[in-house]
Amino acid sequence: MDETLVDQIIEAARLAPTSAGLQPFNVIVISNPVLKAEISPIALNQPQITESSHLLVFASWDKMDNERMEEMYQYIYSQRSLPFDKNMDVMQNLRNLFATFTDEQQYHHSAKQAHIGFGMAIAAAAELGVDATPMEGFDKEALDELLDLPAHGLKSVTLLALGRRDEKTDWLYRLKKVRLPMDRFVISLG
Amino acid sequence: MDETLVDQIIEAARLAPTSAGLQPFNVIVISNPVLKAEISPIALNQPQITESSHLLVFASWDKMDNERMEEMYQYIYSQRSLPFDKNMDVMQNLRNLFATFTDEQQYHHSAKQAHIGFGMAIAAAAELGVDATPMEGFDKEALDELLDLPAHGLKSVTLLALGRRDEKTDWLYRLKKVRLPMDRFVISLG
Repeated sequence: MDETLVDQIIEAARLAPTSAGLQPFNVIVISNPVLKAEISPIALNQPQITESSHLLVFASWDKMDNERMEEMYQYIYSQRSLPFDKNMDVMQNLRNLFATFTDEQQYHHSAKQAHIGFGMAIAAAAELGVDATPMEGFDKEALDELLDLPAHGLKSVTLLALGRRDEKTDWLYRLKKVRLPMDRFVISLG
Repeated sequence: MDETLVDQIIEAARLAPTSAGLQPFNVIVISNPVLKAEISPIALNQPQITESSHLLVFASWDKMDNERMEEMYQYIYSQRSLPFDKNMDVMQNLRNLFATFTDEQQYHHSAKQAHIGFGMAIAAAAELGVDATPMEGFDKEALDELLDLPAHGLKSVTLLALGRRDEKTDWLYRLKKVRLPMDRFVISLG
């Protein structure tokens, strides 16, 4: 697949908004067939892993640590030509908030932010005519270890396999797309 | 704001993909000024709450219970004219998976799915030229109680305030949008 398409899909995830602007996730791009083959058994041998042209791994901060939060705010403030002070209220409020979270809850928080970008990337792929399979069914700890994510302070969240559908053999894409009807999805409180 | 714009934004969230197709979240639409005023103190008095034309509350299943999962799969199978059997492997795998999750972990799972739709809705608003403020800074338990969400088996996840920016007084939108540069956002493993 054309790398510029992959770049545009990743760009959609990069531009996604996140809670407090912290952007606590990264996207890992894998196109190496050997590495995809190693990931396959970790992800229920779903054929999209090895048959994709590019596999995106969304991975979020293992915890919402003060160092990374401050580093991100320093960056934001420098980009906006505003003075940064790590003792300002916004930093203190974030430190205080996440001090009430367990490490696991901090990961769930960062993983939720990754899901916003994940949604944006899926929408971008559709707009660009790229077939994408979002996946959460994989052994996260095994993937973290394989990709050495702890060294980056990251944990895997979701996968997005990119490519072109095989219309001859793919039984799934022919099935009706089913979503809750609007009157069951929406609750109107006036 | 034109209701058809709001409907299109909600439609983007409704069409979002979710893990195992379970779509374990709803969108609650609020335009009543009295109710928005009650929500304001729960949400740090952020002015977008009361100044928005519509406030969307994304709320996800409080847990991934067997009854709702089976009900959703019955619906999907009926829509696809396929026979449904609650003892089939896919149902058993889902029951087995979530049996290993605590109730809190089940909520984090459903809330992550809501974030995919949240991302889609934010992207749709931007495409439609509607100004949207995504928010996570609110007292979730207080909002759940105010909106009687436990009666629906739901917990609040995020807010999306919709409206038109006030260019005269909004200091925030003039600030540079800051995201990590691509080379810090992406990790390429070849």
